[in-house]
Amino acid sequence: MAYRETTKTITKKAEVRDNILLSARNLVLQGGFRLATVSAVAAEAKIATGTVYRYFPSKSELFSEVFRAATELEVNKVAEAIDIDAPFTQRLIAAVNCFSKRALKAPRLAWALIAEPVDPVVDADRLHYRQAYAEIFERLIEEGVKSGEVPPQNKCITAAALVGAMAESLVGPLSPSSHTATSSIDRDALINSIAQFCVQAVTGQETRL
Amino acid sequence: MAYRETTKTITKKAEVRDNILLSARNLVLQGGFRLATVSAVAAEAKIATGTVYRYFPSKSELFSEVFRAATELEVNKVAEAIDIDAPFTQRLIAAVNCFSKRALKAPRLAWALIAEPVDPVVDADRLHYRQAYAEIFERLIEEGVKSGEVPPQNKCITAAALVGAMAESLVGPLSPSSHTATSSIDRDALINSIAQFCVQAVTGQETRL
Repeated sequence: MAYRETTKTITKKAEVRDNILLSARNLVLQGGFRLATVSAVAAEAKIATGTVYRYFPSKSELFSEVFRAATELEVNKVAEAIDIDAPFTQRLIAAVNCFSKRALKAPRLAWALIAEPVDPVVDADRLHYRQAYAEIFERLIEEGVKSGEVPPQNKCITAAALVGAMAESLVGPLSPSSHTATSSIDRDALINSIAQFCVQAVTGQETRL
Repeated sequence: MAYRETTKTITKKAEVRDNILLSARNLVLQGGFRLATVSAVAAEAKIATGTVYRYFPSKSELFSEVFRAATELEVNKVAEAIDIDAPFTQRLIAAVNCFSKRALKAPRLAWALIAEPVDPVVDADRLHYRQAYAEIFERLIEEGVKSGEVPPQNKCITAAALVGAMAESLVGPLSPSSHTATSSIDRDALINSIAQFCVQAVTGQETRL
């Protein structure tokens, strides 16, 4: 009996926790971390503010978990996108397409993950997640060099530069204070420009997309 | 008499203010914003902690001013570096050299300016300063396209991507948690790799540096 009650309690706790995380993610999707105050998260989750704090001692810890879950999903999507049997250039373009299209489809979330001024704990998470992206590109470049498709180069530097280039070229278009609404951007032209920049940078071959 | 006393007071206040800013900058130079607590700044400036708060209502405001002054200097240095009568490629390489060499010479400061997890006010300043760099590159690219040295391209996207690539490829080497001491990095190889990436990205021409 005691055992079954414990299981029930554990399940219930996990449900409340997931509900808080999902509610926070929803708010970030709508308006970035700025909108996701603890009381707003509690309202969204239909629980008391105090209950949120029983599961997440601080807003930083809640944000950090939301950030890490959302980011892990994005990193995995990019890893999947390049996991195709195709020439180097097509795989790199697939990575840029995946990253940029997903960002422009959920611009507030992407802004929150990439650039929204937010507390230092999430900022530290951001450094880790950029590293996770860089590792995907390091493997891709290593394979490209091995197959002779790209010239020998320092894969760590190139990979980091690619991550920076991709993220930074979306910061302007994604910014909520941008003069251009994300919906009115010529997304294909934007994504092609970023992909062209990245392919040329790695291969040294003029590329028109 | 009243007038002269006022002038004296104003001068004195400006001196104390400058002293606080200089002390904060010194601490950031040594160990990033993490080291520059208000009490540490007060100790460095040889004044009481309360005095710091009379000039800067919050740590954020003090940090923000230190950040903006340091960054403005860096942006101006890069602007000067490309202000030479030389072909496009050499001017872009000069910009990368200037940015990277200065960063590797004062790695803690550069880390603080580029990537240190810090409070949201400084994070917001960071977005502005990246925009300031981007504007320098936009002008350079515009001139390169006009002179026919580089293919037509969206100067805003390319410029943002350059800023992202340059900053991100230094994040690893500058990181205080990096496994490699900044002093032992092969700086010339690192800077050449970044410059090569940038030149190839913009020109689409294979470049060996």
